Amino acid sequence: MGKGGMSHGETKDGEDENMAAWLLGVNTLKIQPFKLPSLGPQDVRVRMKAVGICGSDVHYLKTMRCAHFVVKEPMVIGHECAGIVEEVGSEVKSVVPGDRVALEPGISCWRCDLCKEGRYNLCPDMKFFATPPVHGSLANQVVHPADLCFKLPDDVSLEEGAMCEPLSVGVHACRRANTARAFGAPRIVIVDVDDYRLSVAKDLGADEIVKVSTNLQDVDQEVVLIHQAMGTGVDVTFDCAGFDKTMSTALSATRPGGKVCLVGMGHNEMTVPLTPAAAREVDVIGVFRYKNTWPLCIEFLRSGKIDVKPLITHRFGFSQKEVEEAFETSARGSTAIKVMFNL
Amino acid sequence: MGKGGMSHGETKDGEDENMAAWLLGVNTLKIQPFKLPSLGPQDVRVRMKAVGICGSDVHYLKTMRCAHFVVKEPMVIGHECAGIVEEVGSEVKSVVPGDRVALEPGISCWRCDLCKEGRYNLCPDMKFFATPPVHGSLANQVVHPADLCFKLPDDVSLEEGAMCEPLSVGVHACRRANTARAFGAPRIVIVDVDDYRLSVAKDLGADEIVKVSTNLQDVDQEVVLIHQAMGTGVDVTFDCAGFDKTMSTALSATRPGGKVCLVGMGHNEMTVPLTPAAAREVDVIGVFRYKNTWPLCIEFLRSGKIDVKPLITHRFGFSQKEVEEAFETSARGSTAIKVMFNL
Amino acid sequence: MGKGGMSHGETKDGEDENMAAWLLGVNTLKIQPFKLPSLGPQDVRVRMKAVGICGSDVHYLKTMRCAHFVVKEPMVIGHECAGIVEEVGSEVKSVVPGDRVALEPGISCWRCDLCKEGRYNLCPDMKFFATPPVHGSLANQVVHPADLCFKLPDDVSLEEGAMCEPLSVGVHACRRANTARAFGAPRIVIVDVDDYRLSVAKDLGADEIVKVSTNLQDVDQEVVLIHQAMGTGVDVTFDCAGFDKTMSTALSATRPGGKVCLVGMGHNEMTVPLTPAAAREVDVIGVFRYKNTWPLCIEFLRSGKIDVKPLITHRFGFSQKEVEEAFETSARGSTAIKVMFNL
Amino acid sequence: MGKGGMSHGETKDGEDENMAAWLLGVNTLKIQPFKLPSLGPQDVRVRMKAVGICGSDVHYLKTMRCAHFVVKEPMVIGHECAGIVEEVGSEVKSVVPGDRVALEPGISCWRCDLCKEGRYNLCPDMKFFATPPVHGSLANQVVHPADLCFKLPDDVSLEEGAMCEPLSVGVHACRRANTARAFGAPRIVIVDVDDYRLSVAKDLGADEIVKVSTNLQDVDQEVVLIHQAMGTGVDVTFDCAGFDKTMSTALSATRPGGKVCLVGMGHNEMTVPLTPAAAREVDVIGVFRYKNTWPLCIEFLRSGKIDVKPLITHRFGFSQKEVEEAFETSARGSTAIKVMFNL
Repeated sequence: MGKGGMSHGETKDGEDENMAAWLLGVNTLKIQPFKLPSLGPQDVRVRMKAVGICGSDVHYLKTMRCAHFVVKEPMVIGHECAGIVEEVGSEVKSVVPGDRVALEPGISCWRCDLCKEGRYNLCPDMKFFATPPVHGSLANQVVHPADLCFKLPDDVSLEEGAMCEPLSVGVHACRRANTARAFGAPRIVIVDVDDYRLSVAKDLGADEIVKVSTNLQDVDQEVVLIHQAMGTGVDVTFDCAGFDKTMSTALSATRPGGKVCLVGMGHNEMTVPLTPAAAREVDVIGVFRYKNTWPLCIEFLRSGKIDVKPLITHRFGFSQKEVEEAFETSARGSTAIKVMFNL
Repeated sequence: MGKGGMSHGETKDGEDENMAAWLLGVNTLKIQPFKLPSLGPQDVRVRMKAVGICGSDVHYLKTMRCAHFVVKEPMVIGHECAGIVEEVGSEVKSVVPGDRVALEPGISCWRCDLCKEGRYNLCPDMKFFATPPVHGSLANQVVHPADLCFKLPDDVSLEEGAMCEPLSVGVHACRRANTARAFGAPRIVIVDVDDYRLSVAKDLGADEIVKVSTNLQDVDQEVVLIHQAMGTGVDVTFDCAGFDKTMSTALSATRPGGKVCLVGMGHNEMTVPLTPAAAREVDVIGVFRYKNTWPLCIEFLRSGKIDVKPLITHRFGFSQKEVEEAFETSARGSTAIKVMFNL
Repeated sequence: MGKGGMSHGETKDGEDENMAAWLLGVNTLKIQPFKLPSLGPQDVRVRMKAVGICGSDVHYLKTMRCAHFVVKEPMVIGHECAGIVEEVGSEVKSVVPGDRVALEPGISCWRCDLCKEGRYNLCPDMKFFATPPVHGSLANQVVHPADLCFKLPDDVSLEEGAMCEPLSVGVHACRRANTARAFGAPRIVIVDVDDYRLSVAKDLGADEIVKVSTNLQDVDQEVVLIHQAMGTGVDVTFDCAGFDKTMSTALSATRPGGKVCLVGMGHNEMTVPLTPAAAREVDVIGVFRYKNTWPLCIEFLRSGKIDVKPLITHRFGFSQKEVEEAFETSARGSTAIKVMFNL
Repeated sequence: MGKGGMSHGETKDGEDENMAAWLLGVNTLKIQPFKLPSLGPQDVRVRMKAVGICGSDVHYLKTMRCAHFVVKEPMVIGHECAGIVEEVGSEVKSVVPGDRVALEPGISCWRCDLCKEGRYNLCPDMKFFATPPVHGSLANQVVHPADLCFKLPDDVSLEEGAMCEPLSVGVHACRRANTARAFGAPRIVIVDVDDYRLSVAKDLGADEIVKVSTNLQDVDQEVVLIHQAMGTGVDVTFDCAGFDKTMSTALSATRPGGKVCLVGMGHNEMTVPLTPAAAREVDVIGVFRYKNTWPLCIEFLRSGKIDVKPLITHRFGFSQKEVEEAFETSARGSTAIKVMFNL
């Protein structure tokens, strides 16, 4: 490490004591030392300051797997994060030590067809924080490529920076649905089974909310309620759950020529009325993670056009006890929306 | 009828004797008189010369229904057609009596949102030949809007003109998949369960063919065969059947970021691995009929870039006996691809 | 006229006295009787209540022409309008007498390729209010197709309804630019030569404003100012003037891969650095009027997401004297943004 | 160099004798030694076998500049090339020594916004063969990233491989115009001032050819001829020259809602009727080089769907005398289309 990159009083020894939250087995998270990789010429070393807990983190903790990814070796968890740059590689020009940055968690290969086509989120060789076997970012420090560390303006907090990650999922889904009838979305109806989440949605600006059941037989009558709430056909529906019922509702509620974005990943296999939807040219749009979203998210946060602060419902410090409590809080759900670590 | 529009020696009386193939019940087709509607200022009267049999026609004959459409009253059948203009309405400028024309079968309302957005194929008030309760075109004469009657160049036959309709389904599906990686399609692999159809596909220019089973357990190994035949990932897959197996194969075979067009309408409800496909951003694109395809199809036929003549495998005249034989031939499938009436 | 359609106490005689603002020659507008066309089965008769003055109206008044359209015969002027339905044709179902409606001014043919492709704004046979030789809507009553009369919710005023027309121009331009990097527009910079208009833009929500000159030599340094105001490259630039200077600025300011929408129609021929722009794949997107915008505009107005009321700076009644004053006020520009008639 | 990568009997000494065609000044090309850069883990060393001459190469030779690029230091020329892999870096898996490959000439940064959005052809840090100050590929050997070296099938020759580069320009332009009315292009009309080039176009499959003048006054009547040759409106026009006359013709000839792709780079500034084109929503689409085209080009060549061989009109060896003759031949134009070196 060159002297020039030093700041905040760390020493080589200090780096050796870098601590991280390791997933060691089902329901077993331990804070243990994590040796940082060496700093490449295009890398930066970042001191983590804010790390959020994602549903996938909880899923890994409870089952050691998520979708088709299986944790086979101990793995540092966490991927929604922001921090302060402490050291930069020899060729880095975009940030300097002291910069507050939000981290995009995935490192793609830039050699495959998908990367070259601008769909780097689909890169088969993606190295993504806390997707096994790659370590995550719930740690005192991480080393990451500079081009994935986005400088935060003064009026965007580190916690807001960490929220760029979940916000990116929404931004990317909206972009993928972009060819629909309207630019923007003049009217938004939120559908859920949970009263608390519906009330938060209403507070955050949903035009209407519709409470539904988990019963597959109710689809037809609930579609009527959704249409009444919309006042017109639904151009784009986001299924953020991914079950037979939610997808059947989404397909039926969407107007001819509209789109259903499948964001949630509840069940791999679904039994759904795909043919009648296709016969109305309702397209099913797949959504995986995100790409090119951080600058836009940061600008939304800076300008106040999007406010993520009300979503941060719980905060914890980075001790063994608090890490366990934090994950337990997130797993319980109920009134916890986003649980955030302040390191 | 104005004198100016008269030609070919018809008389009013002659019109009264217009005969058509009526679907009267399951397996019951009868040639009976069909009274033409009056000719509006934007309409033309066409003497039918070539009418093809579609799978949906056979479906109606065998079951009195197709998808969610049910035949409740006697209905003239047929919708793939071309003929010769005999009379034109007072405001028609695009064609004159004597012109050979191919007919686009659907009359949309042009007042709903979908029509105005250019997706008139999805018009909820569509009046479409032989979709109940609208009469079809297997008749000596029909009255149809002039803007849906497309003039054929000298070197495109009336039979080829009738083939514009099934060709349009393919053209529209290709257009809907258009945002895929490649313009054009540099390599085409045809997958089927039937040896004869595969051999025709090969003769017509498929780069490779792959024979598959109807067994759901074979999907994974058949996907390997498809990938080998492609030599690379599949950008766009057309499911022209619409069953659990075909859709599962399509979803699995398509590369990340690719598209599956659902053209076939086998089963309404499907059990398919939709989530893993969505997680690779494989979109499912619905396809219903077609729009704005006739001019392009005619130019393809004229230039020889597409040759539909080998697909016309059987020809029949327009007598009670031949109509019955024709439908029986089409229903048997086997070596019948397109069965055509010459009126 | 059926009795059922009567309301508001009009009589046949009352209709005969329908008055309209006729453009008779340069700077010559006269309120004179205008005989309504007969009501077709799909038409409605609307009593006009709010009509705005457009720049093109002023242009016609001052020069008897606008772009390549020339006024050769006396013509009723006006096309930004809303009113109350008084009578409906026999087949109309979408509105009833008493409904408050905003009128989309153009009647397209629905038979040409462009209409069928959903680009009806480009229809060569378009009949558009106050585009010669078609009469406009600054009149007590007009007859118009029902599908172009959009019902206003209770909380959207008739003046706001009339503003759907100019708002539609912006909505359509934004849609045509839609494929750009961001959905939405996280940061908006307004560039103008006029301090008053810049201050209104700032009040209405522009993130930044940049004052520029009319001097072609200043383009390079003004582009630097624009980039500073954006803080990043410009994804989409709207040239709402259409001169060498504005287009040169737009082309130079837009980032590689971005878009310039040419909305303004200042000069037919322009001398601009088109090749360097093309070499950065900056596309020039043409914009003409609008299509499919009224429902979206009405929803924007209803939800308060767009507020057009501050743009209505002057109001006039429908007398000979006031019509003259209103056009004079609009022509002077300065602090007049939208001049509105209340009939 | 590891032993594993050795083949074809080269030695380190052999590499030192690598010869290349250096551009030293106006009209001064010399074959001189060119020291290869070291081989990185993701690089390959390729023995060049076929290199074509591009118009830009000739431009550099005649003026030491092309567009805004200026040759300030001696530079190896050439960028249309194919060869045989001789050595591969330690991490290369896609090719092995002995593979015949076509080279994509541009190395982009993969860290900027444009690279990440999949528009890597617009990367501001692009390193491109023979675009100053980067050396080109008219040399015995070059070192290049493996992911830009595309393996040729047995039935595609090295000369055809070198033709992937100019073919890519056309493929990319077609893709950028892709949203036009038709997929594919059912009818192609070629317009030129040169009889020989028109006759070659006709031989290669143009449906019609139209000879035009260089006189700006002839635009209107030539547009009539173009429309007659098309038989219908022009959906997409490619201006492959880039002058006032060609662009004016392109803008006027294109149908409402169509596109003009500006491929040629004749003049930086153009005086053209941009506003009337925009008012018909004719978009001007910029085109710069290409991206993601090699696999598609190779498949087109392999399948015979595109035949580039007739375009190679002249061949030369790689001696000082032949290099000079080759460039002189290419510069003369007339009957020379593609001049190719066989090394």
